[in-house]
Amino acid sequence: MTTGKPLRVGMVGYAFMGAAHSHAWRTAPRFFDLPLQPRLTAVAGRNADAARAAADRLGWESVETDWRRLIERDDIDLIDICTPGNTHAEIAIAALEAGKHVLCEKPLANSVEEAERMTLAAETAAKQGVLSMCGFSYRRTPALALAKRFVEQGRLGDLRHVRAQYLQDWLSDANAPMTWRLDKSKSGSGSLGDIGAHSIDAAQWVSGQNISGVSALLETFVPERPLAGDLVGLGGHGDLSSDAPRGKVTVDDAAVFTAKFDGGASASLKPRVTRWAGRTPCVWS
Amino acid sequence: MTTGKPLRVGMVGYAFMGAAHSHAWRTAPRFFDLPLQPRLTAVAGRNADAARAAADRLGWESVETDWRRLIERDDIDLIDICTPGNTHAEIAIAALEAGKHVLCEKPLANSVEEAERMTLAAETAAKQGVLSMCGFSYRRTPALALAKRFVEQGRLGDLRHVRAQYLQDWLSDANAPMTWRLDKSKSGSGSLGDIGAHSIDAAQWVSGQNISGVSALLETFVPERPLAGDLVGLGGHGDLSSDAPRGKVTVDDAAVFTAKFDGGASASLKPRVTRWAGRTPCVWS
Amino acid sequence: MTTGKPLRVGMVGYAFMGAAHSHAWRTAPRFFDLPLQPRLTAVAGRNADAARAAADRLGWESVETDWRRLIERDDIDLIDICTPGNTHAEIAIAALEAGKHVLCEKPLANSVEEAERMTLAAETAAKQGVLSMCGFSYRRTPALALAKRFVEQGRLGDLRHVRAQYLQDWLSDANAPMTWRLDKSKSGSGSLGDIGAHSIDAAQWVSGQNISGVSALLETFVPERPLAGDLVGLGGHGDLSSDAPRGKVTVDDAAVFTAKFDGGASASLKPRVTRWAGRTPCVWS
Amino acid sequence: MTTGKPLRVGMVGYAFMGAAHSHAWRTAPRFFDLPLQPRLTAVAGRNADAARAAADRLGWESVETDWRRLIERDDIDLIDICTPGNTHAEIAIAALEAGKHVLCEKPLANSVEEAERMTLAAETAAKQGVLSMCGFSYRRTPALALAKRFVEQGRLGDLRHVRAQYLQDWLSDANAPMTWRLDKSKSGSGSLGDIGAHSIDAAQWVSGQNISGVSALLETFVPERPLAGDLVGLGGHGDLSSDAPRGKVTVDDAAVFTAKFDGGASASLKPRVTRWAGRTPCVWS
Repeated sequence: MTTGKPLRVGMVGYAFMGAAHSHAWRTAPRFFDLPLQPRLTAVAGRNADAARAAADRLGWESVETDWRRLIERDDIDLIDICTPGNTHAEIAIAALEAGKHVLCEKPLANSVEEAERMTLAAETAAKQGVLSMCGFSYRRTPALALAKRFVEQGRLGDLRHVRAQYLQDWLSDANAPMTWRLDKSKSGSGSLGDIGAHSIDAAQWVSGQNISGVSALLETFVPERPLAGDLVGLGGHGDLSSDAPRGKVTVDDAAVFTAKFDGGASASLKPRVTRWAGRTPCVWS
Repeated sequence: MTTGKPLRVGMVGYAFMGAAHSHAWRTAPRFFDLPLQPRLTAVAGRNADAARAAADRLGWESVETDWRRLIERDDIDLIDICTPGNTHAEIAIAALEAGKHVLCEKPLANSVEEAERMTLAAETAAKQGVLSMCGFSYRRTPALALAKRFVEQGRLGDLRHVRAQYLQDWLSDANAPMTWRLDKSKSGSGSLGDIGAHSIDAAQWVSGQNISGVSALLETFVPERPLAGDLVGLGGHGDLSSDAPRGKVTVDDAAVFTAKFDGGASASLKPRVTRWAGRTPCVWS
Repeated sequence: MTTGKPLRVGMVGYAFMGAAHSHAWRTAPRFFDLPLQPRLTAVAGRNADAARAAADRLGWESVETDWRRLIERDDIDLIDICTPGNTHAEIAIAALEAGKHVLCEKPLANSVEEAERMTLAAETAAKQGVLSMCGFSYRRTPALALAKRFVEQGRLGDLRHVRAQYLQDWLSDANAPMTWRLDKSKSGSGSLGDIGAHSIDAAQWVSGQNISGVSALLETFVPERPLAGDLVGLGGHGDLSSDAPRGKVTVDDAAVFTAKFDGGASASLKPRVTRWAGRTPCVWS
Repeated sequence: MTTGKPLRVGMVGYAFMGAAHSHAWRTAPRFFDLPLQPRLTAVAGRNADAARAAADRLGWESVETDWRRLIERDDIDLIDICTPGNTHAEIAIAALEAGKHVLCEKPLANSVEEAERMTLAAETAAKQGVLSMCGFSYRRTPALALAKRFVEQGRLGDLRHVRAQYLQDWLSDANAPMTWRLDKSKSGSGSLGDIGAHSIDAAQWVSGQNISGVSALLETFVPERPLAGDLVGLGGHGDLSSDAPRGKVTVDDAAVFTAKFDGGASASLKPRVTRWAGRTPCVWS
């Protein structure tokens, strides 16, 4: 394995998703025969000490304090974007224009305009053999992959409904602290983008059809949350006193909608119906 | 029991729901201490022979071939309406004006205009002590009754979501035959009214809130079905040849929607979100 | 229906099972075309007032205070035994010898010796066309009936395991009161006979095989229970004070075992393995 | 992380469990703050080429073709035993006597005699600060760890039953090939040891009680299986022709039993009852 042609990765961001991606880059070649061997070449973070500590813990060979440096380095083949959504477009477009392959976390962008610019950059780069993808990780879960195969083989007949629910409970506690994920200026959206994006992608990917219409409700059930020191990650929270200063939640914490599918390539297919819940801070016990 | 004051019932219709109601009238006083003792006094049906056979099988004391005769009889206290929806308004209003109590199957009516006239008649009759209700039978299922009690006691906290699914599979077979339930001129609607009505009532009844807004999709996945001889009931179907003459399905066989709740009496409650599927001819195996 | 040839029933006992049987006799002919029409001719109970009240509530035409009188009456065709197990053998054998058909509640008897005498009486009576059966009601539940059909059709292949659990929770509360079901002199056994009997019958009936060996554990987790006034039924219990006088539970309240099956008629089948829990006073919440 | 004191691991065996352990040694320090930093120092396997290929794929620094060499090396602190059960005792005792810490896969040994000798060696070594453990990996699954905490905190009250099922289906196909796991001379037992061992350990560990009596049934439903080239692992199998040469399965492929627990340190606790299925080659679809 160690002798194969390398895929030298430069990762931007090292919090929750950065840790997950580090694990994936490190582990994949141990279980699968890959055409290229990932190397954890460099990780970028604005705070030098924190980035160096993360690099040590997560196994990266070097550190940069500006993601632009990752893109300039000629010993890096791929830029892995694990930052909040408001930075995706700038990093991804710069990387693609520099001829780096790009893996970008979902949701792809915080606006349609950004996503369209990113798509254009990706299409242009693709002509030079530069690859790009968005990190919809559930496509490789065995159950979804099998479902997609069943659909493709026609074993499920015509699809009449797609039902999807993605329920997380970590925000059901009104004292769970603020994170950047609840700040619209960084995350762009709340449950709709953070977990609803997975449902939307899975529904389209498994069904082989695209959504052609939608009716949705967004709600913010907990409009303020205590401010904790560390707002970077997903993780647990300690005993925040109930009189801690509170920050304003500027995104939805529940998303519910129905949609129509376009029936894919076959115009004779009937419109399809789907619906699901996004992340919902429900109390389940 | 046999010596208590009687409640003399006249039932209109004797097919699927008529059989269910007969069972209920016969059984309830054996398990519960009721203030009045139901008597299965008379059943009405247009076909005299069929009505007489049904009366014999279901245990009714007498037969009428015109529902108006039930209303005229002074030995009948309550009219139980088990007919298709297109006849509900006329029968119910006539019964209420004649001072008979009314139990009417759901969905209450085939149009809002009919329902409003029925409500007005019921309110007028109520001043004379005449009772009326719509047959939302699920209110008495133990699980729903317990859920409502939990809501009323505040044990569930603020309600954030109501999710409901009512899935039936008897129409998933494209060769399941036509019934009056699939004929809009009789039933008014399809899965939305037939089973969605239960979900809507249960959601409002358990939550103690009313729906204040809705976005919906209706679909008819199987637009034609074989015509069988007997179109009155729900029941099974034999081996209908695939080239049997086919009738047009004029109602939805799937209904999906999201709704907002009004927060009940308390204006400070946030709008609520709900969604569910109506009857859906999905293949589950 | 009312004109068909009658099946005149005399029922012994009118508590929990008596109420259930009354309901069944009353209801079955309304839903099924039966060759004979059940009539609720007479019910027997030792206490005349209580028996008469039960007859009125449950719909029986007459009352006897000695089950022997039911057997003597020539207007009764079938004896339905709904009493505790310690009386089954005497009543059933007397009825069979008098030429009455017998339906006997499960468990059939409180000892193998009793059961063998009952079987002998039933076999002798059968030669005169007298029918008898034990009330294993689950055989007619649609799921079990379908499972049996699948086994008979070979659609499940060779059976390798039978797993069964019958879990009831009404005795999980250590303050649930004594009933005759917990008194070995009346019931003969506890969860093993009361609900385990259903599992054993279902396992043999669905598989088409007989149990040929067994290893079992019986436990009595709650050895004493408060004495309430009414020990006849299953039903609910109020707020028994914790210092109410207590009676000794003399049967198991949990039964667990493994068994081998004999492979039925086919000697080439391998021994089969089964296991299940009987009633277990577990707390599930 | 890279600067912490190392724990230099020597692993024996590199098949299914060897790959899993390699992953664990590599990953644990990335997610947890460990007092020692695992190093994948050497792996041992009899076939030099295969061992070298495995070392490369799984990330081991060096290779030995005799496990005794691992024990002799003074740059190795811990011996990780991932071989079939028939070799556990010899390797573990030699390692302990050489002062190496030992992690041994389950089931610990193929006989009680072996297990007792291993225990004695471990107790002797423990006095010199040498640690040893058996690889019951499920103890760290969050659900079981939480269950154990609930038991310890008394939140479940007195335990009355322990029910456990460990169902695998990879042997339900009678054409799944032979592996060493089905050869008693190597594995010692079948489903009982391979997966039943997990259930037994979990039941004792979560309940805090030890099994004091048992009644069991072992079955071998598929007595012969096709011989494939590679018998080392668990993995998938291709299209083995049904006339491939077959090997004899010499262990159980199902294990079912009931057991009593001793009530732990408190003699006043009642005997407890448990039961479970081991691996069972059932067809679930």
